[in-house]
Parts: sequence; C-alpha cells; structure tokens
Amino acid sequence: MLNFTFYNPAKIYFGAGQEAKVGEYVAQYSKKILLHYGGGSIKKNGIYQKVADSLRKSGVAFVELGGAQPNPRLSLVRKGIQLCKEHGLNFILAVGGGSVIDSAKGIAVGVCEQEDIWDYYMGGSDRITQALSIGVVLTIPATGSESSPSSVITNEENDMKRSIATPHVIPKFAVLNPEFTYTLPPYQIACGASDILSHLMERYFTQVDHVDFTDRLLEASMRTILDHGVLALEHPEDYHARAEMMWVGTVAHNGLLNTGRIGDWASHHIEHELSGIYDIAHGAGLAIVTPAWMKYVCHANMDRFVQFATRVFDVSYPMEEKESIVREGILRLEAWYQRMGLPIRLSEVGIGRDRFAEMAGKCMIGRSREGNFQKLDQEDIIKIYELAL
Amino acid sequence: MLNFTFYNPAKIYFGAGQEAKVGEYVAQYSKKILLHYGGGSIKKNGIYQKVADSLRKSGVAFVELGGAQPNPRLSLVRKGIQLCKEHGLNFILAVGGGSVIDSAKGIAVGVCEQEDIWDYYMGGSDRITQALSIGVVLTIPATGSESSPSSVITNEENDMKRSIATPHVIPKFAVLNPEFTYTLPPYQIACGASDILSHLMERYFTQVDHVDFTDRLLEASMRTILDHGVLALEHPEDYHARAEMMWVGTVAHNGLLNTGRIGDWASHHIEHELSGIYDIAHGAGLAIVTPAWMKYVCHANMDRFVQFATRVFDVSYPMEEKESIVREGILRLEAWYQRMGLPIRLSEVGIGRDRFAEMAGKCMIGRSREGNFQKLDQEDIIKIYELAL
Repeated sequence: MLNFTFYNPAKIYFGAGQEAKVGEYVAQYSKKILLHYGGGSIKKNGIYQKVADSLRKSGVAFVELGGAQPNPRLSLVRKGIQLCKEHGLNFILAVGGGSVIDSAKGIAVGVCEQEDIWDYYMGGSDRITQALSIGVVLTIPATGSESSPSSVITNEENDMKRSIATPHVIPKFAVLNPEFTYTLPPYQIACGASDILSHLMERYFTQVDHVDFTDRLLEASMRTILDHGVLALEHPEDYHARAEMMWVGTVAHNGLLNTGRIGDWASHHIEHELSGIYDIAHGAGLAIVTPAWMKYVCHANMDRFVQFATRVFDVSYPMEEKESIVREGILRLEAWYQRMGLPIRLSEVGIGRDRFAEMAGKCMIGRSREGNFQKLDQEDIIKIYELAL
Repeated sequence: MLNFTFYNPAKIYFGAGQEAKVGEYVAQYSKKILLHYGGGSIKKNGIYQKVADSLRKSGVAFVELGGAQPNPRLSLVRKGIQLCKEHGLNFILAVGGGSVIDSAKGIAVGVCEQEDIWDYYMGGSDRITQALSIGVVLTIPATGSESSPSSVITNEENDMKRSIATPHVIPKFAVLNPEFTYTLPPYQIACGASDILSHLMERYFTQVDHVDFTDRLLEASMRTILDHGVLALEHPEDYHARAEMMWVGTVAHNGLLNTGRIGDWASHHIEHELSGIYDIAHGAGLAIVTPAWMKYVCHANMDRFVQFATRVFDVSYPMEEKESIVREGILRLEAWYQRMGLPIRLSEVGIGRDRFAEMAGKCMIGRSREGNFQKLDQEDIIKIYELAL
C-alpha cells in the first residue's frame, strides 16, 4: 500500500424527495447563482420545476445556462464563464448528469483563474488554486462527478478530450434521488453502469501490491454494479436497483477506492479519443475498448486478472489453468456488456480502422506513455484498437 | 435503502512518515493548543518526540495533558476543559488511540458549550452546536474515533459509560502511520481487531432491506479485518498487515458503511456495562458479548445470519439447513476470537452472574429498548449475559 491523502468533503443528500431542500442548501453559499443543465429533459420530467421552486422559496436568484451535451464542449464552458462574470454569479448549481457537472466544474475554475481555461485541461491542473463553489442535483448515475475532483471537457475545435483533477472542484453538496433516473432511456442506464464499472476496473488493475482492503471494496462495488445494472434495466421503476446503482456510482469515484494504489486509466483515455471523434456514448466506447485492453495487457500481471476472474465473476477453473481463468473472466465481462445491450466491438458501431493512427497519436499528446498497469505507446494503442474491431 | 445524509470532511494522511508534517497541519488552525495523550507510552516509543519537534518547527505552542486511560474518564475531560479555558487553547491534538481521541472530543465540546459536559453524554448529543477543532495522531487501530462523529466516556462516579455523536467533533485531520502500531502488545492488537470487526457487525445486522451495496462493502471490510488481524498478530512488524488493519479501522466507522441502514449497537452497549464495571478491555468484552447476542437474536432474521455465515465465513452447507449454517457461522466467529487470543466467555475472565441484573438495569437507563435488530429489554439483556457465562 502506498502513502496517501484522502479528503472528500462533499455532503451527500440521498433518497426520494431530497431535492425539496436544494434551495436551502444553495442559500448557505449564495443568493445569486448560475443554474446549469443539459438538453432540456429536466423541463419535461418535472425536475427543473422542483429545483426552481425550491430556489425561489429560499430567495435564490438564478441565471440559466442549458445545453450541456454528452462529451461536454469547451465553447459552452466559455459561455458559462462569461455569464458568471457578467452577472456576478458566485455559485453554480448543476442539474443533470456528468456532462453538466463537468461543464460546471470548467466554468467554476474559469471564473476564478487567470489563464485560458483550456490550458488547465491541457496538463495545467496543478496550477488551479481556486474555483466557484458547486452544488449538484444528479439525474444520471454514471460519472461520479457529483463528488469527484475531476472534469472532462471536449475541445470541439480540435476534437480533443482532456481532464482536470483538483479538490477545488469537489461539489459542496450533491442531491441524489434515485427516482430521477426512472425516465432515462435503457441505453443511457446501460452506458452509466458501464462507466461506473470502468471507474472500478481502472482502479482495480494496479501493479501496487498489498492493497487487499481496497481490492475487496472494489470487488464488492463491481459485484453491486454488475447485479444492479441488470436489475435497473429489467425493472425501470425498481427504486432499490436505481438506488444501489446511484450510490455505487458516487462511491466508485469519490477517492476512497484508490487510496494507497495507482489506477490505470488507459482504457478511459483510449476511449476518450473514440468518443471525441465519433461522438459515441462514453459507456458504450468503454464496453468496446476495455475487453480489448484486457486481452492486450493481461500478461503484465496474470495474478491480478486471475483474482478479478475468480472473485468478481466466480470463475472456478483449476488454479493451474491461469490462461483459461483469465480468458473466461474477460468473456463473462463481455457477456455482461451484451446483456446490458452495449456493443463490444467497433464493427458493431460502424467504426473501421481508418483513423486508428490519428486517435492513438492524439491519445499520446502531452503524455510520454499511456496507462500504468502496462505502459503503452502509440503502437500499443493501435493494436488495442485492432483487437476491438 | 433508507434516505440518508453522508458527510465526512476529515482529512486522512496515511502512511509511514506522515507525522513529520503534523505541525504544519495544526498551524492551519491554531498556534496554541492542548496536546492530549494517554499513559505515556508515546514518550517511550519516540512518537511524542516526533510530534513535539514538528509542532515546535511550525511555531505551535502546546500545553500538555496526559493520563487518558482505556475507558476514558469524565474527571480527565473536566480537567482538560479547565486547562483549555485557563490557557486560551483553541485546538486539541490527540496523540493516541480511541480513549485519547474520545477524551479530546469531550473536552472540545465542554470548552464551547454551556451545559455540564456529562449532560450531553446522557442523551443531550443533539444540543451540541459547536466544539473546538481536533487533530489526531493515531497510535492504536481500533475505535475509528479518528474520523468518526462519536465519543464514549466513563463517569467514574457512577460507573456509567455513555456516548455522544455529533459532526462537530469529527477531527479536522488524522495522521495514520501503521509503523506506530509495531510496539503495541499482541493483546491490544487483538482487542483493536475485535472492536473494528464489531463496528462492522453492528452495522451489518440490520432489519432494513435492500442494502446490497453496503452489505457487500461491510462483508469486504469484515474479511479484511479477519485476515489482517491474524496476520498483524503473527507478524508484528509486517507493515502491510498493520496498514490494512489501520485503514479498515478508520473506514469501518467513518459513516459510509451505515449509509441507508440502521445498525444495532446492542452488543456495544451491553459490553459497555461490563467494561464500565469490571474495567476489562472493550475489545475483549465484545468477543464475549457478541456471540451470545447472536445466539439470542438470530431468529429475528435468519436470512441475514445465513448471508453473514456464507459470505463472510464461507459456510457452504445446503441452504435448507439454515440453523446449522447460522450456528456454524457463529462458531467460526468464536474460533477467530480464540485464534486472536481473546476470551469468548465471562468465566474466562472471572466474571460471574452476581451483577447481571445491575448491569442490565444500567444499560436500560435513558433507553426504552436496547438495540434495533431485535428490541431488547432488561430481561433479554440478562439472558444474553447468561449465554455468555
């Protein structure tokens, strides 16, 4: 186990009806805020009205900025920064999923810091020393952004997707009402579950040894999302399945589960290039990239993949058959993606090999090597894309 | 799953050498503090010197209060309150285990609040609105007090042991260096592991259903302390076993593992009366009381005990043999306590039935029923003591 610092001061209000007090929670920070949301589904399903009512009841004035899209765009972040500065807004309430929250985080930093906001995303994360306070009303369980220190933004000028990670953007509070997920399309639930599982796997596949406690917490979390992802799909208004999925999504990314270990994150970055160019859903991209990454890197530490297969997927082949155990673990993971209705090959979503070199090249910009479980270069990444065809 | 609020802003600095910066961490809050510790072992093993050097280096002046004992006493809390008021100290650094930290929490509340400090422990916890800030250098993994909102104090005037729980006493930071536990006697390690396991079991045995994620996290944590408790005993200077044990001890009690559920806590309270009167170690008392409690209450929800036996202790009897499965689970728990060198019967520590009625009566003071898994009255508690003979 490595030395670490763990600190996550986000306050979580979890359960049905918790949004009723969001105005009170916001009013502790500001009476004039930016209300940030996505494509407008919150106006159809009534969430917008509930939040707006609660804000008004607590005397909180708000300027609205809708339009955050999946793979949130730099241009909207810039617009939000301008709005906050123009109107003197010093708090952002993000109502939506990870895209809205990540967009809000970019705005929060941009309002307070001096450099161009994109510079921080291009490797300048450590230079961030301040940000506006953020609150969240979560509507999609997936990214964990509601209590995480990270944000991913796509620069549509050059199709680059990059991230920041700084405690300054950890939301002050997040309201999690599982009922808000009832109206999500099945594909979005599946993509959310895939993203949550990936956050757990990226942390699980480490070369740091003696990490037994966090290994077991991660295995517990993976089993939970594997089970309740399926249940949430099969029973769209099962409160309990939605609640389990929502809470594991937050805990997966709040920092606890990578204490004392170094995660990998190559699959995430290799996927970011896919969804940066082709605009497929991040969770679907992960279902395609992750098994390919596993097949490519598993020999870098077979024991870890054996532990994954046996403890998470209950593979119980004889222990001398390590290759078979690991292969079966990956096959069971692929079968789960398929059961969730997700693609597991690029060919299923109509992507060919023509831009592999370009994506692999982009993935390496600003990085000497990709990933930690096995250090990858541009050639390795192309081979992983090939395995995903 | 029940609605919940989760908030734990304690900052954890974990690993070898982390104490070197404790002066810096303290200086962010105060330059004139109370340094609180226990029986003086920290002066023998060098921890006192390291902490004092770091405080001086950061220009932090300190008044010392040693002498916190296992089952920390109200009289020392009163003395600490007086010291802080006299010298104008507005921060407490607790260097030690749970007793020292719990004592520091009592002092922290007493300095700021108006009522007599014992009134808060006798059911007035909700009236606490402020407390001095606390920092911790942990030397014994056990109580989880280093990031928990609770404190248990013994009033030696009437042998009563009572607790408070308020977010105001969550330490601002805690330094956890596993090497600091190398010099602990084996019995103290065993008692610490028992206390940690109990914190997990008290949360696990709930009547709230649909708590699958926290169930699995608790099972993961229980398996970790079962394994690494034994390893820590067998290999006193195995950094990894000590690290796993120390970190699970903190997470067990930081609030995450009881989100959405209601714990039991009868075993803890029934034990408090034992250690309040006989002054045996809390962890040893738990090893005696818990199996007896299990035998008495298991029929209130056999499925939960079946899950415990199968998932935590790998009992794999046929599922129609529920009684045997549950019995075997409890026997395996007792076997673990014995392997850890702990007593599992009152007779082993020379305690007879003569004060059962008195202890059971005290346990009920201020409570209409004890526990949540099965509501217990005074007669029930006497029967549990009988089962522990």
